[in-house]
Amino acid sequence: MDRFGLFGKLTAKEGHGAQLAAILLEASHAMKEVSGCELYVVSTAENEPDAVMVYEVWINEEAHKASLALEATQNLIMQAKPIIAGMERISTFNPLGGKGL
Amino acid sequence: MDRFGLFGKLTAKEGHGAQLAAILLEASHAMKEVSGCELYVVSTAENEPDAVMVYEVWINEEAHKASLALEATQNLIMQAKPIIAGMERISTFNPLGGKGL
Repeated sequence: MDRFGLFGKLTAKEGHGAQLAAILLEASHAMKEVSGCELYVVSTAENEPDAVMVYEVWINEEAHKASLALEATQNLIMQAKPIIAGMERISTFNPLGGKGL
Repeated sequence: MDRFGLFGKLTAKEGHGAQLAAILLEASHAMKEVSGCELYVVSTAENEPDAVMVYEVWINEEAHKASLALEATQNLIMQAKPIIAGMERISTFNPLGGKGL
């Protein structure tokens, strides 16, 4: 079973970028307890103050799907929903390895 | 000074995807000796057998630029050049943190 990776962009309503980044950083800390999650990196986008980029690596696609049902994830989705203007899945891929994995 | 991150796609000439991925994995292992590099993850792209995705996180942009001059990097560029058909920088960003960083 291949590893599963995704890279996406979430755009907050104007002026809420920092707030969205904080919620996603909280989500990344919650992932520290989730063994199926190997990487969950939160970034701000250059030149787009209200955009947040998230890079995730999971042991497989099922582990990622299962994480969406976790209470911690559901709570964070509820927190973020009111300030999200858009979501874009930029790429999905199969991580092979490298530094940090 | 902000961290610097980039996500890119390298496309090999037809049939050379696995070879390109192997060269980039070698590059990722070379980065283990480079303190300025925090993450260097190599992936295959879903549905594109000759594409390789690379996600990098550096302590800052200067560290990334400096790495391009390293002998190890130059050797790998020479190895990869004959089989590369295209290169695309999908996104640059400022990593804040998360699981694995």
